[in-house]
Order: sequence, then C-alpha cells, then structure tokens
Amino acid sequence: MRIAIAQLNPTIGDLTGNAQQILVAAKQAAEQGVRLLLTTEISLCGYPPRDLLLDPSFVQAVETTLQQLAQDLPPELAVLVGCVEPNERAQIQGGKPLFNSIALIEQGQVQQVYHKRLLPTYDVFDDKRYFEPGLASNSFTLDGVRIGVTICEDLWNDEKFWGRRNYAVNPIADLAALGVDIIVNLSGSPYSVGKQHLREAMLRHAAIRYHQPILYANQVGANDDLISDGCSVGFNRLGEIVCRARAFETDLIVLEFDQQERDLQLGPIAPLPENEDAEIWKALVLGVRDYSCKCGFSKVVIGLSGGIDSSLVAAVAQAALGSENVFGVLMPSPHSSEHSIHDALALAKNLGIQTQTLPIGKLMQGYDQTLAQLFAGMPSGVTEENIQSRIRGNLLMAVANKFGYLLLSTGNKSEMAVGYCTLYGDMNGGLAVIADVPKTRVYSLCRWLNATKEIIPANVITKPPSAELKPGQVDQDSLPPYDILDDILQRLIHNHESATQIAAAGHDPATVDHVVRLVNQAEFKRRQAPPGLKITDRAFGTGWRMPIAKKWVSTSRYEPATV
Amino acid sequence: MRIAIAQLNPTIGDLTGNAQQILVAAKQAAEQGVRLLLTTEISLCGYPPRDLLLDPSFVQAVETTLQQLAQDLPPELAVLVGCVEPNERAQIQGGKPLFNSIALIEQGQVQQVYHKRLLPTYDVFDDKRYFEPGLASNSFTLDGVRIGVTICEDLWNDEKFWGRRNYAVNPIADLAALGVDIIVNLSGSPYSVGKQHLREAMLRHAAIRYHQPILYANQVGANDDLISDGCSVGFNRLGEIVCRARAFETDLIVLEFDQQERDLQLGPIAPLPENEDAEIWKALVLGVRDYSCKCGFSKVVIGLSGGIDSSLVAAVAQAALGSENVFGVLMPSPHSSEHSIHDALALAKNLGIQTQTLPIGKLMQGYDQTLAQLFAGMPSGVTEENIQSRIRGNLLMAVANKFGYLLLSTGNKSEMAVGYCTLYGDMNGGLAVIADVPKTRVYSLCRWLNATKEIIPANVITKPPSAELKPGQVDQDSLPPYDILDDILQRLIHNHESATQIAAAGHDPATVDHVVRLVNQAEFKRRQAPPGLKITDRAFGTGWRMPIAKKWVSTSRYEPATV
Repeated sequence: MRIAIAQLNPTIGDLTGNAQQILVAAKQAAEQGVRLLLTTEISLCGYPPRDLLLDPSFVQAVETTLQQLAQDLPPELAVLVGCVEPNERAQIQGGKPLFNSIALIEQGQVQQVYHKRLLPTYDVFDDKRYFEPGLASNSFTLDGVRIGVTICEDLWNDEKFWGRRNYAVNPIADLAALGVDIIVNLSGSPYSVGKQHLREAMLRHAAIRYHQPILYANQVGANDDLISDGCSVGFNRLGEIVCRARAFETDLIVLEFDQQERDLQLGPIAPLPENEDAEIWKALVLGVRDYSCKCGFSKVVIGLSGGIDSSLVAAVAQAALGSENVFGVLMPSPHSSEHSIHDALALAKNLGIQTQTLPIGKLMQGYDQTLAQLFAGMPSGVTEENIQSRIRGNLLMAVANKFGYLLLSTGNKSEMAVGYCTLYGDMNGGLAVIADVPKTRVYSLCRWLNATKEIIPANVITKPPSAELKPGQVDQDSLPPYDILDDILQRLIHNHESATQIAAAGHDPATVDHVVRLVNQAEFKRRQAPPGLKITDRAFGTGWRMPIAKKWVSTSRYEPATV
Repeated sequence: MRIAIAQLNPTIGDLTGNAQQILVAAKQAAEQGVRLLLTTEISLCGYPPRDLLLDPSFVQAVETTLQQLAQDLPPELAVLVGCVEPNERAQIQGGKPLFNSIALIEQGQVQQVYHKRLLPTYDVFDDKRYFEPGLASNSFTLDGVRIGVTICEDLWNDEKFWGRRNYAVNPIADLAALGVDIIVNLSGSPYSVGKQHLREAMLRHAAIRYHQPILYANQVGANDDLISDGCSVGFNRLGEIVCRARAFETDLIVLEFDQQERDLQLGPIAPLPENEDAEIWKALVLGVRDYSCKCGFSKVVIGLSGGIDSSLVAAVAQAALGSENVFGVLMPSPHSSEHSIHDALALAKNLGIQTQTLPIGKLMQGYDQTLAQLFAGMPSGVTEENIQSRIRGNLLMAVANKFGYLLLSTGNKSEMAVGYCTLYGDMNGGLAVIADVPKTRVYSLCRWLNATKEIIPANVITKPPSAELKPGQVDQDSLPPYDILDDILQRLIHNHESATQIAAAGHDPATVDHVVRLVNQAEFKRRQAPPGLKITDRAFGTGWRMPIAKKWVSTSRYEPATV
C-alpha cells in the first residue's frame, strides 16, 4: 500500500487556501498511486489557530470547508485532514467545546474523526485552553492494514525515553496493544535547535519498543513566532529510518507499506541541515519569508548600524526575500564611528541591497533644544542615548509606513534578556528576527555564513560590539563578556537554574546576581517587543508568561524569608 | 466560632512581604478572638504568579516561607494560607508538577494541605499550564464545625446557575453530600464590570441549592493587567448576605458562625460602588496605584492633548497617586487647536498637577527635512501623522527616563480595537490605563466624575473627538460614530458574534465588515501594547491570544469555501 505525506505550509485561518493545498497534494499523490495521504495537525486551519477557535463562525467555516474538501478530493484516496470538531457533550458533561481532530476522508465523505488525546499545555502550547482530550484509541483499517492514528503530543509520553511520564496515558502503547500494523502521527511541531534529532531518537525508541512502524507528518512554515521545520519522517519496525521529507520546505513524499512484511519500505530520505548554524539559518530565513508573505508584505526595511546583529538580519532577509526586496537605512550620529558606515555599506554591497543614509545629528539637536528647559542642569545620560535610538526607530517606521515595507528589528536574545535595547527605538519592528538567537550564536552564524564567501564584512565580526550611543561606548562596559553572559542566561532561562546553582557552576556570584536582576527588570520591555522567531526551547514570546509588577528575584544571596 | 477574612493585597513574588501581611492580619484577628482566618488564593505568592511557578527556587522559597510563617502565626488561630505544593507523584503518574493549594496552619505547623479541583484555562487563566487538579473533596473539622474548603473556580460549575457544565465535577455538591457545616472559598478573582453582582447571584444560588453557608474570600489589588476587587462576601443557609468586605480596598472582616444554628450570623456589610461608572473608576484608580507602587514608581507622566482620553487618565492618576505625583506634558503641533491647549491647562488646573509644554513643530520639520530626499514627490499622509505621534511618544519617554517617572498611555479600547492609534507613538507607556474602556464608557465615566464638581473641563466632553494630526481632522472621518462602533465591538469581541449576526442585529453590513477588518489588521499593534487594565470580560491582554499572520476575517459576506 502506497502512503504519502503532504508536508504543507498552511496559513492560519486561510481555510480555502489550505484546502486548496491539500487538494493539490492529493491529486499529485493520486497520480502516483497513493492509497493513503497524511496531512498535518489542524492542517485545514493552519497551526496554531489560537483564539480563532473561540469564534463560532470560524469553527463553522472549518466544518463547511471540510465537507467541501471531502467532495473535491480524489475519491479513491484516503486522506487524513487535520481539523477541529465540536464536543457535542460539553454542555452536559462539562469540558471544552472542541476536539483537536483528524478527519478520515474517503469516497467524497468524512468517514471517521479522531481526537487528540494528549493536550500540551506548557511553553507556547495552550491545547487545554481550547480542547477536550480524546479518550479512545484511534484506528481504522484500510485494505486490510490496521492504522493507528495519533496527533502530535500523543507520541511524546514514553516514560522510558523521557525518564518520566508527562500524562497518565500513552497512546502508542494503547495502539500497540490493539495490534495495529502502523502508527501515523499528524504534527504541528515547532522548531528549536536540535529538535529533529530529539524527535528521531524518540520515534526510533518507540518503533523499537513497540515493534511498530511509525510515520510522522509535520507541518512546515512559520506562523508569527513559531517555525515548523517539516522533516516528516518514518521508521520501520526495527527503528530504522525509512524516509524523511525536506527540512524547512514543503514536500510530498511517497513510500510503500509492504502488506506481507507489514512494514514500511525504504523511501526518500532528505538530508538534515549539516549543523546547528545551517539549521538555524534556514529557520530564520523561512521565518522572515513566511511572516512577510502571510502578513502581505513583499519588501522589508532594516536599520543598518554596521554591527553584527543588523548585518545578520539583513543577510537573512536577503536570503528570504531577494536583494531587491530588502532596503537598508543607515542613520549615523555624531557618535557613530567611520567604520560603522563603511561596514554597513560593505554589507549592503555584499548583499546587493539598496540603502539610504539619514543622519540623525540634527534631530538629536532638535530634541535637546525641545527638552533643554525641562532638563536644565541635569547631566546627559541614558535618556539621551534612548532618544538617539528612538529617532532611528521613528525614521525606520516612517520609511516602513511610507513605502508599505515591513520593518525588521535586529535585537538578539542576550540583549532582550538583560534589556540592553531601547523600547520604541531599536526594538521597533513587525518581526524580531533574531530575538531568540543569543549573541554568541549570532557570531557563529555569521562565521558559518562566511565560510565560502564573505557576506558579513570581516570587520563586523572582529570589532568589539557597541551600541555607539556615546563616545567610545562598547557593550562590555555594561555587560559581562557575551560567552559568560550567554552561559548564565542559558542556565537561568533554559535550565531553570537558580542563581545559587549558577554561581556554584563557577560563575562569579555578583555577576550572576547582576544578570538575574537585569533579566527581571527588563520584563516590561519584552512585553512590548514584536513577535520573535523562536529557535530555542524557551523563547521570550508566547511561551514566556512572566509578571512585570513583582518582587521575586532569585539571587545567589537569597535566604529563607523570616517574617 | 468567630471567623475572619483577610482581604489582602499581595505583591507577586514578594514572599516575605506577603507573609508579613498575613501575619499582621492574623495578629489583629487573634486579638478579636477569631478562631479561623481565611486568606485568598495563592496569597503567599500573590495571584497570579504565572511562570514564576516554573522556577524551582521560587517553589522552594514558597515552601520555606510557609514553614516560617507557620511558626510565626498565633498558635491558637487556624489560618488558611494560599500556596502551591509539589505534586510528588507527577514523575511516575504523569501530570503537572504543582497543586494550587491551601495550607491549614495551626499550632505552629501546617496541619493539612488542600488542592484546587477545577482549574480554569480560558481567558486570562492558565491554571492547567502549572497545576494538577485535586481529586478529593477538601474538609476539616475545627471545634466541632466541619468546614469544606474550595479554591476560586471550585465554586464556578453549577449547571443550574450557568445552564451548562464547565467541568465534570462540582466540588460544592461533593462537600454538601459530605455534610459539611460551611463552605469556605479562597479566591483570586479578577474584576470585570458587574462581576460582583454575578458572584453574589452565583453564591446565593449555591447557598440555597445546597442549604450551605458560604464564605468567599477574595484578593484585592492589581497585578499588571488584572485587578482583583476584593468584595469578599458571605451567605447564610437561606442565601441571605451576611457580610461583605470593602470593594477595591484591603479589609479584615470578622463574623460569627453560630454552632447551635450551624449558620453564619450577620456581620459587617460594606456597600458596593453605587453604579458601574463608580466601580470602573475605583478599579482604574487601584490599577494605576498598584502598578506604579509594585513596579517601584512614585510619579507618573502623561501626555495631555486636551482630549477626553488623556483627561480621564490624568484624573485617574491624580486620584491614585496625588496631584504632586502626576506630571502632564502638552505637546502642541501646528495642527493643534487653541482649545486643545486651553482644555489641557484647565484640566491640569482642576487636578492641581504640574505641566510642561513642549511644542513639536520644529521636530516635525526636522523629520520632514531628514526624510525629504527619500520621500521626494510623495504626498504627505499617514506617515507624517504617525511621525507627530511618535515625536510625542519619544518626548514623553525622555521625560519618563530622565526623571524616573512611569509613562501612562491613554488609548481607549475602541481605538485599540480598530488600530486608531500609533504604535511607538501615543501607545507608548508602561501601563495602558483605559485600554479596556470603550470610548462610550470614557464619556460616561467623565460625566459621572463631573457630577458634583467639574474635573474634566466641559469642552473636553462636548467637542468632537480628534487626533489633531492634520487640519480639521475628527475621529469620525475614519470611524463610525462611537456608539455604533462600540456596539459592533461589544458583539464581535465579547459576544463572539459573526459579522453576519452583527449585521442581522441592524448594523450596516459594510460598516460591520469595515470594523471587522480593522480589528483584524490591528493585531500587530495590540501585540506590542503595554499591559492594559482589564475591566471587561474580554480584554486585549493576556487573555487575548490571536495570531497576527492570518487570513481569517469573518465578514458578513463570508461564504462557504469552494476549493
């Protein structure tokens, strides 16, 4: 039996467009003699639809579109379409009004509907906000092959793999106990660094443990902060990989399920990106392309400071949208060094992008004059540095507004963490491209990018980083060296280590406390940041829900309260 | 038996300070011969602690502080303290690592711990992100009185009251079946207009239905966007109100449980605010005061346009912090009318606040000159209007930064809904005071405020609203009249009506479609807005989770997709 995976890139809420994508893939699959086509989680709505699910007219439109799609699909093909289904018993029994569902469509009709059982409610996931868990094992028989159906998280609860249970039930174990021939999974799994290695290890483990072939179909494409990397993959009963769809691209892969051997046969195996830098690069490029296109922008504008962050963002944008669709703006001040302008222009030349230079010195004077009386007798300081940054932010928004461009902001994760950035200044933009990329990773990405040909001018990489908001300023006047800062942040944010633990790992306690306090204090800035492309397992975005007005700061000096 | 409710205002994460508040209340209660003291939901941490709960050192500190508090509390008093407790079985059985808990403290020790059973996961509530539900009914016996213990949502699942079930179980019914003598509830319930009337109707219904006295203790105070209104309340077995704590203020109320009659006796009953305007006013004042204080600000700055929104915000701030702590900035442009300046100064005089005037004409010219070459040949328009707003935003932030003031933003909900506001301009601020107040309510609040004495200058209320960003501009050039707009928004946002339904209710379909599209398009602005004080049942804040990059727009012309 021939099975295919349609690794599609839906747009959230574009029901007609998403149905059209599924239909096109189904026709291609049918032409290749495919019997069963897998799409991805909530493929009809696009994942994640979030609070669109609270709109009854949206839910109704999903149902209408699904019925229409069922009629349009090639009747000889069985297609698993991700959708939502109302929970008819919610009013009486209690529970959420929807199920996260898969419809089995065949012969012009929805034949069966399956419900997601494990509902992730952590990090960026809010499944229990919308959905009631399915209670039954999901399976159906097609041409004598018994197929177990799961949705995304349903595969992520193997206590032997994780060392702990996350949910009371394990749908794989239930399906294996039922004696299915193959388990399929429809996912909308967001990318983070190294995630595919984790997924494949987990799926391999499950295939071996339960002696089950597993076919995993994942969405591809970016939706706001979340990037799905695709990489749909299959394992046979021995835990050997038998197919993999492309990373960060749409794909349609076809492979055979051998009904004698009752196992998947070898199909196409696309390579994974060669290393983490290549992987992150592709993620960011896809993130910028999809956010731009799905929001209706064809061109972007970026402030080019000559620094490494804006240089990387410009390179990503150029790769995503083409040189002709990226516009760079240089905004030198009296504090800008000569090399900054040279470096920015050299970068623009390397990327083949247009630039405009808008000096800000006169506007700085204008603000100084406007505020002179009010600020009389007070020394110049952070306020004036922020004004510079906000003049630039204002000019960039003016360019974006006038020409209908999308402004990309260029702050990195290290800055966002400690608040080394100006709200309404350099934080301005519709998308924060590298907001989840630590500064040390920014460097490694640029070096990787330059491996075959210099794209980021060498001087941009080698000079000491500086905001150039006052004479002679460098980042390390205010912050620990980035390798130290990033290690502290990794421990604090990703590993949930306390200040005491981080200090015990060898960091200077005063530095740790300083960083922890900065991270706390910067919460108000992050709350107003644009969506940032998520590339780690804990980003400052929809999955980071921290109070602003609070008094808790875990420092290495924390002692039990005495009241 | 004497029972007291400590209606406290904790600060999130301030474990020592919150424990201190509980201790002070307990000592006062003990002096009055109280036997049982109720605090509120997670009172030790402050509600809602959100992702602080993911920090193991925070959870450890809660435990340490609780143990210390147990030792410090008067031993003769039984105290119910809101806290969190680790779910020891999570690793083995699956499930979330914490319980939302109440500790019963007596004789220097934690005697028992109870777990919240119904975990709200909708709107601003994310309980299932953090907590495992408790499975058992919670009760204990004190001096022969059997007391049923519930936490917040545990009381909110009566299918007869709501006409539907939200959860499978009803903890009140379970406790009544156990034969408890009284049900107590510890809440952290956020305010919305009319919420207390709803709560009291629900509690009265439950008291009567189950023939149970109910004592409901609610947190007071604001934390970021959420305002808890207090209004802790008690009902006897007949459903008669027996006590009510003050609205929007801390309180300690004491009443008797008659052990013969096994019912609550009459205690103090504080009045509710006299109408919705008075209620919203108190909520906003508390919201501004708490956000300022809990973030460490003593003074605020506000841009005064002479318009009704900034006038109301200034009045709220003055009531919250005192005249000497509110600074108004007038920033007239060549498009500003004379009356705007007069009205702003008249308001400042009425409020007794200091102002400074910073004309922006020269800065407007500065931007025009800086951008002249790039924008050559293009007509002036929205870009230039935005620049004006952003100059003002930049000046206000400069004042805030220089003097350490908190900038309050002044946009109303109607504007935020349709995007009639400038990102990085008038949206700037640490707190959006009236972001959840529709424009029509802004008017009614101002009229209410002026009832006894003119605070908002009459002309501010009677003149047509205008952003004054170009000559002769009024809001109604771009938007439907506010009474129409607000009704459409109410139906769309609060009632989840489709465009078709809204049009069917009598609105012009083209107007409805226009508004629906504006609301969709403005999502990117709202994502970067400051926290806004929530006063309705659906605010654009932590409880509004809408994708930005999407294609779904429910319009009155929507037709089933054909693919």
